[in-house]
Amino acid sequence: MKVLLSVGGWMGRLEQFAEFRRRMNERIMGFGNLDTRRFWALDSSVYRAGALDERVKELLGLATSLVLRCDDCVTYHIIRCVQLGLTDEEILEALNVALVVGGSITIPHLRRAVEAIDECRNLTAEELNRLLA
Amino acid sequence: MKVLLSVGGWMGRLEQFAEFRRRMNERIMGFGNLDTRRFWALDSSVYRAGALDERVKELLGLATSLVLRCDDCVTYHIIRCVQLGLTDEEILEALNVALVVGGSITIPHLRRAVEAIDECRNLTAEELNRLLA
Amino acid sequence: MKVLLSVGGWMGRLEQFAEFRRRMNERIMGFGNLDTRRFWALDSSVYRAGALDERVKELLGLATSLVLRCDDCVTYHIIRCVQLGLTDEEILEALNVALVVGGSITIPHLRRAVEAIDECRNLTAEELNRLLA
Amino acid sequence: MKVLLSVGGWMGRLEQFAEFRRRMNERIMGFGNLDTRRFWALDSSVYRAGALDERVKELLGLATSLVLRCDDCVTYHIIRCVQLGLTDEEILEALNVALVVGGSITIPHLRRAVEAIDECRNLTAEELNRLLA
Amino acid sequence: MKVLLSVGGWMGRLEQFAEFRRRMNERIMGFGNLDTRRFWALDSSVYRAGALDERVKELLGLATSLVLRCDDCVTYHIIRCVQLGLTDEEILEALNVALVVGGSITIPHLRRAVEAIDECRNLTAEELNRLLA
Amino acid sequence: MKVLLSVGGWMGRLEQFAEFRRRMNERIMGFGNLDTRRFWALDSSVYRAGALDERVKELLGLATSLVLRCDDCVTYHIIRCVQLGLTDEEILEALNVALVVGGSITIPHLRRAVEAIDECRNLTAEELNRLLA
Repeated sequence: MKVLLSVGGWMGRLEQFAEFRRRMNERIMGFGNLDTRRFWALDSSVYRAGALDERVKELLGLATSLVLRCDDCVTYHIIRCVQLGLTDEEILEALNVALVVGGSITIPHLRRAVEAIDECRNLTAEELNRLLA
Repeated sequence: MKVLLSVGGWMGRLEQFAEFRRRMNERIMGFGNLDTRRFWALDSSVYRAGALDERVKELLGLATSLVLRCDDCVTYHIIRCVQLGLTDEEILEALNVALVVGGSITIPHLRRAVEAIDECRNLTAEELNRLLA
Repeated sequence: MKVLLSVGGWMGRLEQFAEFRRRMNERIMGFGNLDTRRFWALDSSVYRAGALDERVKELLGLATSLVLRCDDCVTYHIIRCVQLGLTDEEILEALNVALVVGGSITIPHLRRAVEAIDECRNLTAEELNRLLA
Repeated sequence: MKVLLSVGGWMGRLEQFAEFRRRMNERIMGFGNLDTRRFWALDSSVYRAGALDERVKELLGLATSLVLRCDDCVTYHIIRCVQLGLTDEEILEALNVALVVGGSITIPHLRRAVEAIDECRNLTAEELNRLLA
Repeated sequence: MKVLLSVGGWMGRLEQFAEFRRRMNERIMGFGNLDTRRFWALDSSVYRAGALDERVKELLGLATSLVLRCDDCVTYHIIRCVQLGLTDEEILEALNVALVVGGSITIPHLRRAVEAIDECRNLTAEELNRLLA
Repeated sequence: MKVLLSVGGWMGRLEQFAEFRRRMNERIMGFGNLDTRRFWALDSSVYRAGALDERVKELLGLATSLVLRCDDCVTYHIIRCVQLGLTDEEILEALNVALVVGGSITIPHLRRAVEAIDECRNLTAEELNRLLA
């Protein structure tokens, strides 16, 4: 689904999410204080490769986001999972764990997750990277 | 509220929900595996008449959806409740239980629930059925 | 399971819940202000028979409590459901809706719910009434 | 972001929230029963000045809304906080507590909260008052 | 309520909470890595006096903990609120906001919160400090 | 911590969890109907090796359980993670993702998770297996 933005032109759901995320993250770096910035740093740090590789950590981010039912968080981790080369079947199995843990209340979010996967598969690697640039 | 869709034309909130649900359920049946399909089957099965009738079960689906604050789930169960002939007063009392259990944080969702009831009351039985076809 | 209380003697889980609820409700009526008392009144009022009967309303209370995973709330509504003459099968079907809506994360609470049902079935009507007196 | 409304013209996010809230609150006063109205009254009452002043109470409303991740509730309390003269730094510190308590899952809601603050700062006192009139 | 601990002797609920918190915080500092320690540091930092004073911040911690229904978190912030000299009426008003925002599902936690307040009022300042030492 | 059980003798937290889980799962198989049993089957099925191996799936179960703050679920997945040979550092990194996603409200559950890891490390492989037998 696309909505007509006041800035003109059409923007897909992924692009809308990415544009809002980029713009507000920048704004929050100006608005926030040291504690805010420390949280942001920590939120990057825990997904870096360590004893677990990045792909497992993104799947953890995805599954926790689905059970907590946050569409933007799910969209972000879907983009990352596709960037890191996870297959549809691998992502699906993580979503299935989250579906069973979190119940049918996650289904509307699962629908949007699968739509996001499909949209990511239509993008080039470069376009994907630009989303989270 | 209506938003202008890129496919052209206006679509109300109920129709948007119904179109997205239908399209993505179909996509998920293709994307998902056996576990996904089993969950979908179970999600139908628990609402079938048994010791409790369908109307009580849809009210249970509605009240649990409201306390968990899922607009799409609330919309779905509102449509079902209206289809099954529940009155405004019956639906309202279930919503009131959910409001007291779940607190004021449910109020924005309650607003959308009441809007959905009003929209359903403006549809014919046939139009209602088509929403969930 | 029973735990040894410092006041002496053994107390089952239902009795512990009931004793704590009674004691603290009384304390809160002293501690709280007008808003607190109004909430308590409302929390009784929404479960009274109206367009929906008391049994449906208690099932709504039970199912919403299970998806929100509050053991004390589940215990309370189980006692009420048994008092009102709901059968095991009726209660089970409400629990199944909640299980599917809320997912496997509700299972530990479902275990305690079934234990509470079994404990209630071992009590006389008078003993049940005394729990919530 | 603005979306094109079917009633014509552009409406910002704050105005959309305010219009929907006003219209549906009015509708709910007609649709609801005595219990519904009592809840609405209580929802006003607990934010009135008492032992704690209104500003602290609105910050409590804001922080609880953020950890429960309700955008409409966050928007409402942001408008109230700005009306009551709270500074950006004061609002930010309440948001930081909520961010740490509620985790990164609150970040998308925090982005929308900061956007709402910025939008409120662009309104006159009269325009702000009109939003919640 | 007291439970008989295997280490011998009776321990009240506050002391149990405090002993477990102290022991496991120490263990987690050994078990955790840099990210864990950074989160712990941030969890202290956001409650320090800044634009908002410590008392308001502890009330924010208390109210968010109650709506998220975490007994240990509620107990911690109750102890802090009493240490900082907040009155019963001030704490109660914060709890009432949380009760209305979070609904009746918070009531069992509110009962334990009021019990914790009563227990804190029976302790000397020194005993209170020792709980969180 | 150990509590004195009425059946006599001391039982550690892991054993208590395991005993209650075993007893009530058995009871629920008798109490439940076909839908209940289907959910139980699905709850096993999604953790079986597929495109993702069992260890990743248990970490997904663990992280989702921590953000949803279910101690019994966390305990179960900790036992499984240790059985499957995951290291402390691997488990910790999954817990850290959940801590950042879910916020400080997960900390009391994280404390109990680390305690459960320590208890599992003190058991032989045979003792671990017996817990979930």
